[in-house]
Amino acid sequence: MKLNLINSPLKADLELIEKELEKSIHSDIDLLQEASIQLLKAGGKRIRPIFVLLCAKFGTYDIHNVKNTAIALELIHMASLVHDDVIDEADLRRGRPTISYTWNDRVAMYTGDYMLARSLDYMTNIEDPMAHRILAKAIVEVCKGEIEQIKDKYRFDQNIRDYLRRIKRKTALLIAVSCELGAVSAGADEKTYRILYRFGYCIGMSYQIIDDILDFTATEETLGKPAGEDLRQGNITLPALYAMEDTQLRERIFKIRENIDTKEMEQIITHIKNSDAIEKSYDLSQKYLNKALVLLNDLPANPAKKMLQDIAKYIGKRKY
Amino acid sequence: MKLNLINSPLKADLELIEKELEKSIHSDIDLLQEASIQLLKAGGKRIRPIFVLLCAKFGTYDIHNVKNTAIALELIHMASLVHDDVIDEADLRRGRPTISYTWNDRVAMYTGDYMLARSLDYMTNIEDPMAHRILAKAIVEVCKGEIEQIKDKYRFDQNIRDYLRRIKRKTALLIAVSCELGAVSAGADEKTYRILYRFGYCIGMSYQIIDDILDFTATEETLGKPAGEDLRQGNITLPALYAMEDTQLRERIFKIRENIDTKEMEQIITHIKNSDAIEKSYDLSQKYLNKALVLLNDLPANPAKKMLQDIAKYIGKRKY
Repeated sequence: MKLNLINSPLKADLELIEKELEKSIHSDIDLLQEASIQLLKAGGKRIRPIFVLLCAKFGTYDIHNVKNTAIALELIHMASLVHDDVIDEADLRRGRPTISYTWNDRVAMYTGDYMLARSLDYMTNIEDPMAHRILAKAIVEVCKGEIEQIKDKYRFDQNIRDYLRRIKRKTALLIAVSCELGAVSAGADEKTYRILYRFGYCIGMSYQIIDDILDFTATEETLGKPAGEDLRQGNITLPALYAMEDTQLRERIFKIRENIDTKEMEQIITHIKNSDAIEKSYDLSQKYLNKALVLLNDLPANPAKKMLQDIAKYIGKRKY
Repeated sequence: MKLNLINSPLKADLELIEKELEKSIHSDIDLLQEASIQLLKAGGKRIRPIFVLLCAKFGTYDIHNVKNTAIALELIHMASLVHDDVIDEADLRRGRPTISYTWNDRVAMYTGDYMLARSLDYMTNIEDPMAHRILAKAIVEVCKGEIEQIKDKYRFDQNIRDYLRRIKRKTALLIAVSCELGAVSAGADEKTYRILYRFGYCIGMSYQIIDDILDFTATEETLGKPAGEDLRQGNITLPALYAMEDTQLRERIFKIRENIDTKEMEQIITHIKNSDAIEKSYDLSQKYLNKALVLLNDLPANPAKKMLQDIAKYIGKRKY
């Protein structure tokens, strides 16, 4: 099951957004244009725009209004990816060279800056001051998250609560806000947009947990990078945290440093992959998903609700 | 004459802003807090908050409203400095080590990101959607300016128009917008805030030209870095452009590369410093200042107008 299939009723609107995204990053500065296009063409699932549009269906849906929110959210997401790749010193993103790798950190920094700026520019088409407040606060949290991720690197004595707070800022918040702002920009009522925020939050948590599982279990071909890259970089995710309940493995993980012996690292990753840590991680992801589905019960029945349910189920099963 | 002296009627409000600035960058993440405070304590003339407050005096002045705009503008300015220092690979800013130097480029990148995010957060207290549109478009231009500055480095066949466009984006625009938004957030009428925008633009152009002159003429002690640093870094400013009207000097300047012989570089800088290029640059700066003063004639007489005039005159005479 591919995500784009279940979204066919949105097809025309998503195509419009794709075209507008390309327009949004147009620049008469060649280098900037090239770098932005490279990022845009690398794809991505456009999850944030999809949620914006679907949640706008709970208000007065007007694509020419709501597209501004959808584009703004995707641009913020893309900007955060570019800056993240600088922080992570990543060479590849979705199997393609990152901007920092193709050019350098400085180009990546200002390409991200430019995308964020363009995002704000789109948001100004939304008149509701509340929308701006919600977004600004989310951006503050995303920035804090960026930094906390560095701080928590190779810090093996962290717990699951630390991890959950980190992925909230890294992923769940922007998906929650996509849902909320989709509804807000379509003038949906408060009860509705609050539920959609919480729905998005649960979906985002579940989504990131699965991302972190796949980093261990998927093939290098699917990931576009070697499996276990997170742990190799000192990023401690849920499977690693569960795996550390095994005291012997815990000791070995605690010894991971940047220059760890490759063979030992491979063994640790295989160990985690074959442990019950994966299953436990799936269970937590599923709990968030179930909560998301329960939240939807309080919303009126409409085709968008059905699609939100489908997406939630898809996320539980995705393999890449 | 010091800028803070002529601003004494604003003293209490500026102190309030200083305190709020410190609060604004508070973070429970130590590293972020330290980096932001280092930048804040490095000072700066707080020109943008001063203009925001003064221009708000042309509307209904309420410090508790207008402070949001003042802080937002100063935070955007600070964020752009931090990212600029990464782009310029600068070790010193106002004689103090930069964030990139004290920590590294990555810390500088996200400290800038965080400041920008906090700035947006403050702006959301201003309800007028126009204010957000003005600011978002300015941020886009500032970002473009960052990149153009790199593109134009060591490109000696540029002309004065290229230079003026660059300093518009680098400096004048944010000062223009400080003036405009000060008036807008105090509910001033359209004629007034348009004049103030143009006033700020002229002041900003004049201000940056003088900055670029001082880079040649001031002492290392005043600058906090060696004189002629701009040209040494390949940044071609107005004095260099005027100096290139001398064909012999032009040839020597065209040969400047990153690894240029120190003695030859010193000679070129001394040459420019003693040429009429400095005087010509002052003349252009003065033209902008005069235009700024003429613009003020169309505004009603009030104490703020007198202070804007004083600041304009101060800028023409400043030595650091």
